[in-house]
Amino acid sequence: MQRLIECVPNFSEGRNLTKIKKIANSAKKIKGVRVLDVEWDRSHNRSLVTIVGAPNEVFRACYEMIKTATKLIDMRKQKGEHPRIGATDVVPFVPVSGVTLKECVVLANKLGKKVANELRIPVYLYEAAAKRADRVNLADVRRGEYEGLKKEIETNPERRPDYGPYKMHPTAGAVVIGARKYLIAFNVNLDTKDIEIAKKIAAKVREKDGGLPGVKALGFAVAGYAQVSMNLVDFEKTNFAEAYWAIEKEAKKFKVEIKSSEVYGMIPLEALVKAIKTTFKAKDFKSEQVLEKRLYE
Amino acid sequence: MQRLIECVPNFSEGRNLTKIKKIANSAKKIKGVRVLDVEWDRSHNRSLVTIVGAPNEVFRACYEMIKTATKLIDMRKQKGEHPRIGATDVVPFVPVSGVTLKECVVLANKLGKKVANELRIPVYLYEAAAKRADRVNLADVRRGEYEGLKKEIETNPERRPDYGPYKMHPTAGAVVIGARKYLIAFNVNLDTKDIEIAKKIAAKVREKDGGLPGVKALGFAVAGYAQVSMNLVDFEKTNFAEAYWAIEKEAKKFKVEIKSSEVYGMIPLEALVKAIKTTFKAKDFKSEQVLEKRLYE
Repeated sequence: MQRLIECVPNFSEGRNLTKIKKIANSAKKIKGVRVLDVEWDRSHNRSLVTIVGAPNEVFRACYEMIKTATKLIDMRKQKGEHPRIGATDVVPFVPVSGVTLKECVVLANKLGKKVANELRIPVYLYEAAAKRADRVNLADVRRGEYEGLKKEIETNPERRPDYGPYKMHPTAGAVVIGARKYLIAFNVNLDTKDIEIAKKIAAKVREKDGGLPGVKALGFAVAGYAQVSMNLVDFEKTNFAEAYWAIEKEAKKFKVEIKSSEVYGMIPLEALVKAIKTTFKAKDFKSEQVLEKRLYE
Repeated sequence: MQRLIECVPNFSEGRNLTKIKKIANSAKKIKGVRVLDVEWDRSHNRSLVTIVGAPNEVFRACYEMIKTATKLIDMRKQKGEHPRIGATDVVPFVPVSGVTLKECVVLANKLGKKVANELRIPVYLYEAAAKRADRVNLADVRRGEYEGLKKEIETNPERRPDYGPYKMHPTAGAVVIGARKYLIAFNVNLDTKDIEIAKKIAAKVREKDGGLPGVKALGFAVAGYAQVSMNLVDFEKTNFAEAYWAIEKEAKKFKVEIKSSEVYGMIPLEALVKAIKTTFKAKDFKSEQVLEKRLYE
Protein backbone atom coordinates (compact mmCIF):
# COMPACT_ATOMS: atom_id res chain seq x y z
CA MET A 1 0.00 0.00 0.00
CA GLN A 2 1.28 3.46 -0.88
CA ARG A 3 2.13 5.53 2.19
CA LEU A 4 0.25 8.81 2.23
CA ILE A 5 -0.30 11.59 4.73
CA GLU A 6 -2.09 14.88 4.52
CA CYS A 7 -1.08 18.14 6.13
CA VAL A 8 -3.12 21.35 6.31
CA PRO A 9 -0.86 24.10 7.70
CA ASN A 10 -2.65 27.34 8.61
CA PHE A 11 -0.89 30.64 7.96
CA SER A 12 -1.73 34.06 9.38
CA GLU A 13 -1.99 35.71 5.99
CA GLY A 14 -5.34 35.92 4.18
CA ARG A 15 -5.06 39.17 2.25
CA ASN A 16 -1.81 39.35 0.30
CA LEU A 17 -2.24 36.79 -2.50
CA THR A 18 1.37 37.10 -3.63
CA LYS A 19 2.56 36.03 -0.20
CA ILE A 20 0.02 33.19 0.03
CA LYS A 21 1.16 31.87 -3.35
CA LYS A 22 4.81 32.09 -2.35
CA ILE A 23 4.09 29.98 0.73
CA ALA A 24 2.13 27.36 -1.25
CA ASN A 25 4.76 27.31 -3.99
CA SER A 26 7.50 26.45 -1.55
CA ALA A 27 5.65 23.13 -0.98
CA LYS A 28 5.44 22.49 -4.72
CA LYS A 29 9.23 22.47 -4.92
CA ILE A 30 9.31 19.13 -3.10
CA LYS A 31 8.92 16.25 -5.57
CA GLY A 32 6.08 13.86 -4.77
CA VAL A 33 4.06 16.42 -2.82
CA ARG A 34 0.72 17.54 -4.25
CA VAL A 35 -0.85 20.84 -3.26
CA LEU A 36 -4.54 19.89 -3.33
CA ASP A 37 -6.02 23.13 -2.18
CA VAL A 38 -5.19 26.70 -1.14
CA GLU A 39 -7.89 28.62 0.72
CA TRP A 40 -7.82 32.07 2.26
CA ASP A 41 -10.11 34.42 4.10
CA ARG A 42 -9.62 38.19 4.21
CA SER A 43 -11.51 38.88 7.42
CA HIS A 44 -9.87 35.96 9.21
CA ASN A 45 -6.58 37.07 7.61
CA ARG A 46 -5.68 33.42 7.38
CA SER A 47 -4.86 30.82 4.70
CA LEU A 48 -4.88 27.03 4.59
CA VAL A 49 -2.74 24.94 2.27
CA THR A 50 -3.72 21.26 1.86
CA ILE A 51 -0.84 19.04 0.80
CA VAL A 52 -0.65 15.26 0.34
CA GLY A 53 2.26 12.90 -0.25
CA ALA A 54 4.62 10.41 1.33
CA PRO A 55 5.49 11.24 4.99
CA ASN A 56 9.07 12.45 4.45
CA GLU A 57 8.15 14.59 1.47
CA VAL A 58 5.22 16.19 3.31
CA PHE A 59 7.56 16.83 6.23
CA ARG A 60 10.05 18.62 3.97
CA ALA A 61 7.30 20.60 2.21
CA CYS A 62 5.94 21.74 5.57
CA TYR A 63 9.33 22.93 6.68
CA GLU A 64 9.79 24.88 3.45
CA MET A 65 6.39 26.54 3.85
CA ILE A 66 7.12 27.47 7.47
CA LYS A 67 10.46 28.95 6.41
CA THR A 68 8.75 31.05 3.74
CA ALA A 69 5.95 32.16 6.07
CA THR A 70 8.57 33.14 8.67
CA LYS A 71 10.16 35.48 6.13
CA LEU A 72 6.90 36.95 4.78
CA ILE A 73 4.58 37.40 7.76
CA ASP A 74 5.20 39.89 10.56
CA MET A 75 3.01 39.07 13.57
CA ARG A 76 3.68 42.47 15.13
CA LYS A 77 1.49 43.99 12.41
CA GLN A 78 -0.91 41.09 11.78
CA LYS A 79 -4.61 41.63 12.60
CA GLY A 80 -7.56 39.35 11.85
CA GLU A 81 -10.68 37.75 13.30
CA HIS A 82 -9.20 34.29 13.65
CA PRO A 83 -7.25 33.44 16.82
CA ARG A 84 -3.52 32.84 16.14
CA ILE A 85 -0.15 32.75 17.86
CA GLY A 86 2.20 32.75 14.89
CA ALA A 87 2.94 33.32 11.21
CA THR A 88 2.58 29.59 10.70
CA ASP A 89 -0.16 29.03 13.22
CA VAL A 90 -1.08 25.32 13.17
CA VAL A 91 0.44 22.32 11.39
CA PRO A 92 -1.57 19.06 11.71
CA PHE A 93 -0.25 15.81 10.20
CA VAL A 94 -3.03 13.42 9.21
CA PRO A 95 -2.62 9.75 8.18
CA VAL A 96 -4.41 8.93 4.90
CA SER A 97 -3.25 5.44 3.91
CA GLY A 98 -0.58 2.98 5.01
CA VAL A 99 0.60 5.31 7.81
CA THR A 100 -0.30 5.19 11.51
CA LEU A 101 -1.23 8.11 13.71
CA LYS A 102 1.85 7.26 15.79
CA GLU A 103 4.09 7.87 12.78
CA CYS A 104 2.46 11.26 12.36
CA VAL A 105 3.22 12.00 16.02
CA VAL A 106 6.89 11.12 15.37
CA LEU A 107 6.85 13.43 12.34
CA ALA A 108 5.29 16.26 14.38
CA ASN A 109 8.10 15.94 16.92
CA LYS A 110 10.76 15.85 14.22
CA LEU A 111 9.34 18.97 12.57
CA GLY A 112 8.98 20.65 15.96
CA LYS A 113 12.66 20.11 16.73
CA LYS A 114 13.79 21.32 13.31
CA VAL A 115 11.65 24.46 13.45
CA ALA A 116 12.85 25.19 16.98
CA ASN A 117 16.54 24.60 16.23
CA GLU A 118 16.89 26.06 12.76
CA LEU A 119 14.29 28.83 12.73
CA ARG A 120 14.38 29.63 16.47
CA ILE A 121 10.59 29.55 16.74
CA PRO A 122 8.98 28.13 19.93
CA VAL A 123 6.90 25.02 19.15
CA TYR A 124 3.86 23.63 20.99
CA LEU A 125 2.65 20.09 20.34
CA TYR A 126 -1.12 19.43 20.28
CA GLU A 127 -3.77 16.73 19.77
CA ALA A 128 -2.26 13.22 19.41
CA ALA A 129 1.24 14.75 19.60
CA ALA A 130 0.55 16.65 22.84
CA LYS A 131 3.04 15.95 25.65
CA ARG A 132 0.70 17.40 28.27
CA ALA A 133 -3.03 16.85 28.79
CA ASP A 134 -3.64 20.63 28.84
CA ARG A 135 -2.22 20.94 25.31
CA VAL A 136 -4.46 18.41 23.56
CA ASN A 137 -6.96 21.12 22.63
CA LEU A 138 -5.77 23.75 20.23
CA ALA A 139 -7.77 26.50 21.94
CA ASP A 140 -5.88 25.89 25.19
CA VAL A 141 -2.51 26.16 23.46
CA ARG A 142 -3.57 29.35 21.68
CA ARG A 143 -4.97 31.07 24.80
CA GLY A 144 -4.06 34.78 24.87
CA GLU A 145 -3.06 34.63 21.19
CA TYR A 146 0.18 36.11 19.86
CA GLU A 147 -0.01 39.24 22.01
CA GLY A 148 -0.80 37.45 25.27
CA LEU A 149 1.57 34.54 24.77
CA LYS A 150 4.42 36.93 23.95
CA LYS A 151 4.56 37.96 27.62
CA GLU A 152 3.49 34.66 29.21
CA ILE A 153 6.02 32.49 27.37
CA GLU A 154 8.83 34.34 29.16
CA THR A 155 7.25 34.61 32.59
CA ASN A 156 4.91 31.63 33.12
CA PRO A 157 6.63 28.17 33.25
CA GLU A 158 3.26 26.56 32.41
CA ARG A 159 3.32 28.22 28.99
CA ARG A 160 6.85 27.20 28.06
CA PRO A 161 6.99 25.58 24.59
CA ASP A 162 7.73 21.87 24.01
CA TYR A 163 10.66 22.77 21.76
CA GLY A 164 12.64 25.96 21.18
CA PRO A 165 13.31 29.19 23.03
CA TYR A 166 11.16 30.44 25.91
CA LYS A 167 10.69 33.57 23.89
CA MET A 168 8.54 34.39 20.87
CA HIS A 169 10.26 34.69 17.47
CA PRO A 170 10.33 38.47 16.87
CA THR A 171 8.19 38.35 13.74
CA ALA A 172 6.91 34.76 13.39
CA GLY A 173 5.64 34.26 16.95
CA ALA A 174 5.13 30.58 17.85
CA VAL A 175 3.76 27.53 16.05
CA VAL A 176 1.50 24.64 17.06
CA ILE A 177 2.37 21.29 15.46
CA GLY A 178 0.48 18.05 15.93
CA ALA A 179 -1.13 14.92 14.59
CA ARG A 180 -4.74 13.85 14.35
CA LYS A 181 -6.82 11.31 12.50
CA TYR A 182 -8.63 12.10 9.27
CA LEU A 183 -11.94 13.82 9.91
CA ILE A 184 -14.93 12.94 7.73
CA ALA A 185 -17.82 15.42 7.72
CA PHE A 186 -21.00 13.42 7.12
CA ASN A 187 -24.59 14.61 7.26
CA VAL A 188 -27.75 12.51 7.20
CA ASN A 189 -30.99 14.26 6.24
CA LEU A 190 -34.21 12.86 7.65
CA ASP A 191 -37.54 12.82 5.86
CA THR A 192 -39.12 14.98 8.56
CA LYS A 193 -39.16 18.63 9.60
CA ASP A 194 -39.11 17.67 13.26
CA ILE A 195 -35.72 18.87 14.52
CA GLU A 196 -36.33 17.25 17.88
CA ILE A 197 -36.06 13.85 16.20
CA ALA A 198 -32.70 14.79 14.65
CA LYS A 199 -31.50 16.02 18.05
CA LYS A 200 -32.60 12.81 19.77
CA ILE A 201 -30.93 10.64 17.13
CA ALA A 202 -27.75 12.73 17.32
CA ALA A 203 -27.67 12.18 21.08
CA LYS A 204 -28.08 8.44 20.54
CA VAL A 205 -25.23 8.05 18.06
CA ARG A 206 -22.58 10.43 19.44
CA GLU A 207 -19.71 9.09 21.52
CA LYS A 208 -20.10 11.69 24.26
CA ASP A 209 -23.50 10.29 25.24
CA GLY A 210 -22.56 6.63 24.97
CA GLY A 211 -22.98 6.19 21.22
CA LEU A 212 -20.50 5.23 18.52
CA PRO A 213 -16.74 5.76 19.03
CA GLY A 214 -15.32 8.81 17.28
CA VAL A 215 -18.72 10.26 16.38
CA LYS A 216 -19.61 13.87 17.12
CA ALA A 217 -23.22 14.62 16.20
CA LEU A 218 -25.74 17.44 16.39
CA GLY A 219 -29.34 17.84 15.23
CA PHE A 220 -30.08 20.79 12.94
CA ALA A 221 -32.79 22.22 10.71
CA VAL A 222 -31.47 22.50 7.14
CA ALA A 223 -33.54 23.74 4.20
CA GLY A 224 -36.82 22.50 5.61
CA TYR A 225 -35.81 19.12 6.98
CA ALA A 226 -34.09 17.73 10.03
CA GLN A 227 -30.43 16.87 9.73
CA VAL A 228 -28.05 14.80 11.85
CA SER A 229 -24.72 16.55 11.22
CA MET A 230 -21.63 14.56 12.14
CA ASN A 231 -17.89 14.74 12.40
CA LEU A 232 -16.38 11.26 12.24
CA VAL A 233 -13.00 11.74 13.90
CA ASP A 234 -11.87 8.11 13.63
CA PHE A 235 -13.25 6.36 10.56
CA GLU A 236 -11.32 3.18 11.40
CA LYS A 237 -13.66 2.84 14.36
CA THR A 238 -16.86 4.35 12.98
CA ASN A 239 -17.03 4.91 9.26
CA PHE A 240 -19.84 6.80 7.51
CA ALA A 241 -21.46 3.44 6.66
CA GLU A 242 -21.82 2.43 10.32
CA ALA A 243 -23.04 5.93 11.23
CA TYR A 244 -25.65 5.73 8.46
CA TRP A 245 -26.97 2.33 9.52
CA ALA A 246 -27.11 3.39 13.17
CA ILE A 247 -29.10 6.50 12.26
CA GLU A 248 -31.43 4.48 10.03
CA LYS A 249 -32.10 2.14 12.94
CA GLU A 250 -32.82 5.01 15.37
CA ALA A 251 -34.96 6.82 12.79
CA LYS A 252 -37.13 3.73 12.36
CA LYS A 253 -38.13 4.04 16.01
CA PHE A 254 -39.67 7.40 15.08
CA LYS A 255 -41.10 5.93 11.86
CA VAL A 256 -38.88 8.31 9.91
CA GLU A 257 -36.95 7.47 6.74
CA ILE A 258 -33.56 8.76 5.67
CA LYS A 259 -34.06 11.23 2.84
CA SER A 260 -30.44 11.62 1.75
CA SER A 261 -26.89 11.80 3.03
CA GLU A 262 -23.83 13.83 2.13
CA VAL A 263 -20.10 13.46 2.52
CA TYR A 264 -18.76 16.98 2.90
CA GLY A 265 -15.32 17.69 1.46
CA MET A 266 -12.61 15.17 0.76
CA ILE A 267 -12.55 11.56 1.89
CA PRO A 268 -9.73 8.99 1.79
CA LEU A 269 -10.24 6.07 -0.61
CA GLU A 270 -9.74 3.76 2.37
CA ALA A 271 -13.00 5.02 3.94
CA LEU A 272 -14.89 4.13 0.74
CA VAL A 273 -13.26 0.72 0.61
CA LYS A 274 -14.14 0.10 4.27
CA ALA A 275 -17.77 1.07 3.59
CA ILE A 276 -17.92 -1.40 0.67
CA LYS A 277 -16.31 -4.13 2.79
CA THR A 278 -18.74 -3.87 5.69
CA THR A 279 -21.91 -3.12 3.72
CA PHE A 280 -21.43 -5.88 1.15
CA LYS A 281 -19.63 -8.36 3.44
CA ALA A 282 -16.68 -8.16 1.02
CA LYS A 283 -13.97 -8.72 3.62
CA ASP A 284 -11.17 -9.30 1.10
CA PHE A 285 -11.82 -6.15 -0.91
CA LYS A 286 -8.74 -3.90 -1.07
CA SER A 287 -8.05 -0.37 -2.23
CA GLU A 288 -5.37 -1.83 -4.54
CA GLN A 289 -8.23 -3.24 -6.63
CA VAL A 290 -9.34 0.28 -7.46
CA LEU A 291 -7.99 1.00 -10.91
CA GLU A 292 -7.34 4.69 -10.32
CA LYS A 293 -5.27 3.98 -7.21
CA ARG A 294 -2.76 2.19 -9.39
CA LEU A 295 -2.22 5.28 -11.51
CA TYR A 296 -0.19 7.28 -9.02
CA GLU A 297 1.83 4.49 -7.47
CA MET B 1 -13.28 14.61 -14.44
CA GLN B 2 -10.07 13.10 -15.75
CA ARG B 3 -10.54 11.16 -18.99
CA LEU B 4 -9.35 7.58 -18.68
CA ILE B 5 -9.60 4.47 -20.79
CA GLU B 6 -8.20 1.00 -20.37
CA CYS B 7 -6.92 -1.28 -23.08
CA VAL B 8 -5.94 -4.94 -22.74
CA PRO B 9 -4.30 -6.03 -26.00
CA ASN B 10 -3.69 -9.80 -26.33
CA PHE B 11 -0.52 -10.99 -28.05
CA SER B 12 0.23 -14.45 -29.43
CA GLU B 13 3.45 -14.84 -27.44
CA GLY B 14 3.43 -16.46 -23.99
CA ARG B 15 6.84 -18.13 -23.84
CA ASN B 16 9.60 -15.72 -24.79
CA LEU B 17 9.79 -13.25 -21.91
CA THR B 18 12.23 -10.97 -23.72
CA LYS B 19 9.73 -10.49 -26.52
CA ILE B 20 6.81 -9.99 -24.10
CA LYS B 21 8.79 -7.32 -22.24
CA LYS B 22 9.73 -5.57 -25.47
CA ILE B 23 6.04 -5.39 -26.43
CA ALA B 24 5.01 -4.02 -23.01
CA ASN B 25 7.94 -1.58 -22.97
CA SER B 26 6.86 -0.01 -26.24
CA ALA B 27 3.71 1.16 -24.38
CA LYS B 28 5.80 2.62 -21.56
CA LYS B 29 7.47 4.99 -24.01
CA ILE B 30 4.24 6.97 -24.32
CA LYS B 31 4.03 9.59 -21.59
CA GLY B 32 0.87 9.43 -19.48
CA VAL B 33 0.26 5.73 -20.13
CA ARG B 34 0.53 3.31 -17.20
CA VAL B 35 1.21 -0.38 -17.74
CA LEU B 36 -0.83 -1.86 -14.89
CA ASP B 37 -0.27 -5.51 -15.58
CA VAL B 38 1.53 -7.94 -17.88
CA GLU B 39 0.32 -11.56 -17.83
CA TRP B 40 1.39 -14.54 -19.92
CA ASP B 41 0.62 -18.20 -20.25
CA ARG B 42 3.02 -20.73 -21.74
CA SER B 43 0.47 -23.33 -22.79
CA HIS B 44 -1.85 -20.71 -24.27
CA ASN B 45 1.27 -19.08 -25.76
CA ARG B 46 -0.42 -15.77 -25.18
CA SER B 47 0.18 -12.55 -23.19
CA LEU B 48 -2.05 -9.70 -22.01
CA VAL B 49 -0.86 -6.17 -21.32
CA THR B 50 -3.21 -3.93 -19.31
CA ILE B 51 -2.65 -0.23 -19.93
CA VAL B 52 -4.54 2.81 -18.68
CA GLY B 53 -4.38 6.48 -19.60
CA ALA B 54 -5.98 9.30 -21.55
CA PRO B 55 -7.62 8.12 -24.82
CA ASN B 56 -5.05 9.53 -27.27
CA GLU B 57 -2.10 8.28 -25.27
CA VAL B 58 -3.58 4.79 -24.95
CA PHE B 59 -4.23 4.85 -28.69
CA ARG B 60 -0.58 5.69 -29.39
CA ALA B 61 0.69 3.09 -26.91
CA CYS B 62 -1.48 0.42 -28.56
CA TYR B 63 -0.13 1.27 -31.96
CA GLU B 64 3.46 1.05 -30.69
CA MET B 65 2.78 -2.36 -29.10
CA ILE B 66 1.17 -3.67 -32.29
CA LYS B 67 4.17 -2.46 -34.30
CA THR B 68 6.57 -4.25 -31.95
CA ALA B 69 4.49 -7.45 -31.90
CA THR B 70 4.40 -7.37 -35.71
CA LYS B 71 8.19 -7.39 -35.79
CA LEU B 72 8.67 -10.05 -33.09
CA ILE B 73 5.94 -12.65 -33.61
CA ASP B 74 5.78 -14.95 -36.64
CA MET B 75 2.35 -16.54 -36.90
CA ARG B 76 3.61 -19.14 -39.39
CA LYS B 77 5.50 -20.79 -36.51
CA GLN B 78 3.18 -19.89 -33.62
CA LYS B 79 1.43 -22.76 -31.79
CA GLY B 80 -0.64 -22.61 -28.60
CA GLU B 81 -3.86 -23.74 -26.96
CA HIS B 82 -5.61 -20.38 -27.21
CA PRO B 83 -7.47 -19.52 -30.43
CA ARG B 84 -5.84 -16.62 -32.34
CA ILE B 85 -5.70 -15.04 -35.78
CA GLY B 86 -2.70 -12.74 -35.42
CA ALA B 87 0.46 -11.63 -33.62
CA THR B 88 -1.60 -8.92 -31.96
CA ASP B 89 -4.78 -10.91 -31.60
CA VAL B 90 -7.38 -8.71 -29.86
CA VAL B 91 -7.36 -5.02 -28.84
CA PRO B 92 -10.37 -3.93 -26.73
CA PHE B 93 -10.77 -0.27 -25.71
CA VAL B 94 -12.69 0.13 -22.44
CA PRO B 95 -14.02 3.41 -20.97
CA VAL B 96 -13.01 3.90 -17.32
CA SER B 97 -13.97 7.48 -16.45
CA GLY B 98 -15.12 10.60 -18.29
CA VAL B 99 -15.15 8.76 -21.65
CA THR B 100 -18.12 7.21 -23.49
CA LEU B 101 -18.22 3.82 -25.16
CA LYS B 102 -18.89 5.68 -28.39
CA GLU B 103 -15.55 7.48 -28.12
CA CYS B 104 -13.89 4.10 -27.69
CA VAL B 105 -15.62 2.93 -30.87
CA VAL B 106 -14.21 5.98 -32.69
CA LEU B 107 -10.76 5.14 -31.30
CA ALA B 108 -11.07 1.50 -32.41
CA ASN B 109 -11.86 2.68 -35.95
CA LYS B 110 -8.97 5.14 -35.94
CA LEU B 111 -6.54 2.47 -34.77
CA GLY B 112 -7.97 0.00 -37.28
CA LYS B 113 -7.33 2.39 -40.17
CA LYS B 114 -3.80 3.19 -38.99
CA VAL B 115 -2.85 -0.47 -38.53
CA ALA B 116 -4.33 -1.34 -41.93
CA ASN B 117 -2.67 1.55 -43.77
CA GLU B 118 0.72 1.69 -42.10
CA LEU B 119 1.37 -1.92 -41.11
CA ARG B 120 -0.66 -3.56 -43.92
CA ILE B 121 -2.47 -5.86 -41.47
CA PRO B 122 -6.15 -6.72 -42.10
CA VAL B 123 -8.36 -5.44 -39.25
CA TYR B 124 -11.70 -6.78 -38.00
CA LEU B 125 -13.89 -4.69 -35.70
CA TYR B 126 -15.80 -6.46 -32.90
CA GLU B 127 -18.19 -5.89 -29.95
CA ALA B 128 -19.45 -2.28 -29.75
CA ALA B 129 -17.20 -1.36 -32.70
CA ALA B 130 -18.54 -4.15 -34.96
CA LYS B 131 -19.85 -2.96 -38.32
CA ARG B 132 -21.74 -6.21 -38.90
CA ALA B 133 -23.95 -8.21 -36.54
CA ASP B 134 -21.96 -11.40 -37.23
CA ARG B 135 -18.78 -9.73 -35.94
CA VAL B 136 -20.02 -8.68 -32.51
CA ASN B 137 -18.79 -11.91 -30.95
CA LEU B 138 -15.04 -12.44 -30.93
CA ALA B 139 -15.39 -16.19 -31.48
CA ASP B 140 -17.19 -15.58 -34.77
CA VAL B 141 -14.47 -13.23 -36.01
CA ARG B 142 -11.76 -15.71 -35.02
CA ARG B 143 -13.43 -18.73 -36.64
CA GLY B 144 -10.88 -20.97 -38.39
CA GLU B 145 -8.04 -19.19 -36.55
CA TYR B 146 -4.91 -17.95 -38.31
CA GLU B 147 -4.56 -21.01 -40.51
CA GLY B 148 -8.19 -21.12 -41.63
CA LEU B 149 -8.63 -17.37 -42.09
CA LYS B 150 -5.45 -17.19 -44.20
CA LYS B 151 -7.30 -18.95 -47.02
CA GLU B 152 -10.81 -17.60 -46.40
CA ILE B 153 -9.81 -13.93 -46.28
CA GLU B 154 -8.77 -14.13 -49.94
CA THR B 155 -11.61 -16.29 -51.22
CA ASN B 156 -14.74 -15.65 -49.12
CA PRO B 157 -16.21 -12.10 -49.40
CA GLU B 158 -17.99 -12.66 -46.06
CA ARG B 159 -14.64 -12.85 -44.30
CA ARG B 160 -13.14 -9.69 -45.78
CA PRO B 161 -11.70 -7.41 -43.11
CA ASP B 162 -13.25 -4.05 -42.14
CA TYR B 163 -9.96 -2.28 -42.92
CA GLY B 164 -6.84 -3.28 -44.81
CA PRO B 165 -5.87 -5.82 -47.43
CA TYR B 166 -7.96 -8.88 -48.24
CA LYS B 167 -4.86 -10.90 -47.47
CA MET B 168 -3.19 -11.90 -44.21
CA HIS B 169 0.00 -10.08 -43.20
CA PRO B 170 2.72 -12.66 -43.97
CA THR B 171 3.94 -12.94 -40.35
CA ALA B 172 1.48 -10.95 -38.23
CA GLY B 173 -1.78 -12.39 -39.60
CA ALA B 174 -4.83 -10.25 -38.77
CA VAL B 175 -6.02 -8.26 -35.74
CA VAL B 176 -9.39 -7.80 -34.03
CA ILE B 177 -9.96 -4.31 -32.59
CA GLY B 178 -13.02 -3.17 -30.67
CA ALA B 179 -14.67 -1.43 -27.78
CA ARG B 180 -16.63 -2.74 -24.83
CA LYS B 181 -17.76 -1.55 -21.42
CA TYR B 182 -15.81 -2.27 -18.25
CA LEU B 183 -16.57 -5.72 -16.92
CA ILE B 184 -16.84 -6.23 -13.15
CA ALA B 185 -16.51 -9.80 -11.89
CA PHE B 186 -18.62 -10.06 -8.73
CA ASN B 187 -19.46 -13.16 -6.70
CA VAL B 188 -21.98 -13.49 -3.90
CA ASN B 189 -21.58 -16.46 -1.56
CA LEU B 190 -24.71 -17.77 0.13
CA ASP B 191 -24.87 -19.21 3.61
CA THR B 192 -26.07 -22.57 2.25
CA LYS B 193 -24.59 -25.60 0.52
CA ASP B 194 -27.66 -25.94 -1.69
CA ILE B 195 -26.40 -25.14 -5.20
CA GLU B 196 -29.92 -25.29 -6.56
CA ILE B 197 -30.72 -22.12 -4.61
CA ALA B 198 -27.72 -20.35 -6.16
CA LYS B 199 -28.81 -21.52 -9.61
CA LYS B 200 -32.37 -20.32 -9.07
CA ILE B 201 -31.19 -16.93 -7.81
CA ALA B 202 -28.75 -16.60 -10.73
CA ALA B 203 -31.64 -17.26 -13.14
CA LYS B 204 -33.69 -14.57 -11.37
CA VAL B 205 -31.05 -11.83 -11.58
CA ARG B 206 -29.47 -12.40 -14.99
CA GLU B 207 -30.54 -10.30 -17.95
CA LYS B 208 -31.01 -13.27 -20.29
CA ASP B 209 -33.92 -14.57 -18.20
CA GLY B 210 -35.55 -11.20 -17.60
CA GLY B 211 -33.44 -10.03 -14.69
CA LEU B 212 -31.16 -7.02 -14.30
CA PRO B 213 -29.64 -5.30 -17.37
CA GLY B 214 -26.01 -6.20 -18.05
CA VAL B 215 -25.93 -9.05 -15.55
CA LYS B 216 -24.62 -12.49 -16.48
CA ALA B 217 -25.00 -14.95 -13.61
CA LEU B 218 -24.46 -18.63 -12.85
CA GLY B 219 -24.90 -20.75 -9.72
CA PHE B 220 -21.85 -22.70 -8.54
CA ALA B 221 -20.56 -24.73 -5.62
CA VAL B 222 -17.41 -23.12 -4.23
CA ALA B 223 -15.49 -24.41 -1.19
CA GLY B 224 -18.56 -25.90 0.47
CA TYR B 225 -21.12 -23.17 -0.16
CA ALA B 226 -23.35 -22.01 -2.97
CA GLN B 227 -22.18 -19.06 -5.01
CA VAL B 228 -23.88 -16.73 -7.45
CA SER B 229 -21.06 -15.84 -9.83
CA MET B 230 -21.62 -12.76 -11.98
CA ASN B 231 -20.16 -10.70 -14.77
CA LEU B 232 -21.53 -7.18 -14.69
CA VAL B 233 -20.98 -5.97 -18.24
CA ASP B 234 -22.55 -2.53 -17.77
CA PHE B 235 -22.07 -1.16 -14.27
CA GLU B 236 -23.76 2.11 -15.23
CA LYS B 237 -26.98 0.09 -15.49
CA THR B 238 -26.43 -2.55 -12.82
CA ASN B 239 -23.60 -1.99 -10.39
CA PHE B 240 -22.42 -4.57 -7.85
CA ALA B 241 -24.53 -2.81 -5.20
CA GLU B 242 -27.78 -3.36 -7.10
CA ALA B 243 -26.79 -6.95 -7.90
CA TYR B 244 -26.08 -7.56 -4.21
CA TRP B 245 -29.40 -6.14 -3.01
CA ALA B 246 -31.32 -8.10 -5.67
CA ILE B 247 -29.63 -11.33 -4.60
CA GLU B 248 -30.27 -10.58 -0.93
CA LYS B 249 -33.96 -10.11 -1.73
CA GLU B 250 -34.17 -13.38 -3.69
CA ALA B 251 -32.18 -15.27 -1.03
CA LYS B 252 -34.65 -14.14 1.64
CA LYS B 253 -37.37 -16.05 -0.21
CA PHE B 254 -35.34 -19.20 0.47
CA LYS B 255 -34.62 -18.01 4.05
CA VAL B 256 -30.93 -17.87 3.13
CA GLU B 257 -28.48 -15.16 4.19
CA ILE B 258 -25.59 -13.76 2.20
CA LYS B 259 -22.36 -15.08 3.71
CA SER B 260 -19.90 -12.86 1.84
CA SER B 261 -19.21 -11.23 -1.49
CA GLU B 262 -16.11 -10.60 -3.57
CA VAL B 263 -15.09 -8.20 -6.27
CA TYR B 264 -12.67 -10.10 -8.48
CA GLY B 265 -9.83 -8.15 -10.08
CA MET B 266 -9.77 -4.42 -10.73
CA ILE B 267 -12.70 -2.05 -10.49
CA PRO B 268 -13.04 1.59 -11.60
CA LEU B 269 -13.38 4.14 -8.79
CA GLU B 270 -16.61 5.29 -10.44
CA ALA B 271 -18.25 1.93 -9.63
CA LEU B 272 -17.37 2.38 -5.94
CA VAL B 273 -18.68 5.93 -5.96
CA LYS B 274 -21.91 4.80 -7.61
CA ALA B 275 -22.36 2.07 -4.97
CA ILE B 276 -21.92 4.66 -2.20
CA LYS B 277 -24.36 7.05 -3.91
CA THR B 278 -27.17 4.53 -4.26
CA THR B 279 -26.68 2.64 -1.01
CA PHE B 280 -26.40 5.73 1.20
CA LYS B 281 -28.71 7.99 -0.84
CA ALA B 282 -25.74 10.32 -1.28
CA LYS B 283 -26.73 11.62 -4.70
CA ASP B 284 -24.21 14.49 -4.77
CA PHE B 285 -21.21 12.35 -3.91
CA LYS B 286 -18.48 12.59 -6.56
CA SER B 287 -15.26 10.73 -7.29
CA GLU B 288 -13.49 14.11 -7.15
CA GLN B 289 -14.08 14.03 -3.39
CA VAL B 290 -11.83 11.00 -3.10
CA LEU B 291 -8.49 12.29 -1.94
CA GLU B 292 -6.39 9.76 -3.87
CA LYS B 293 -8.10 10.64 -7.16
CA ARG B 294 -6.67 14.13 -6.88
CA LEU B 295 -3.13 12.80 -6.75
CA TYR B 296 -2.81 11.82 -10.39
CA GLU B 297 -4.74 14.66 -11.98
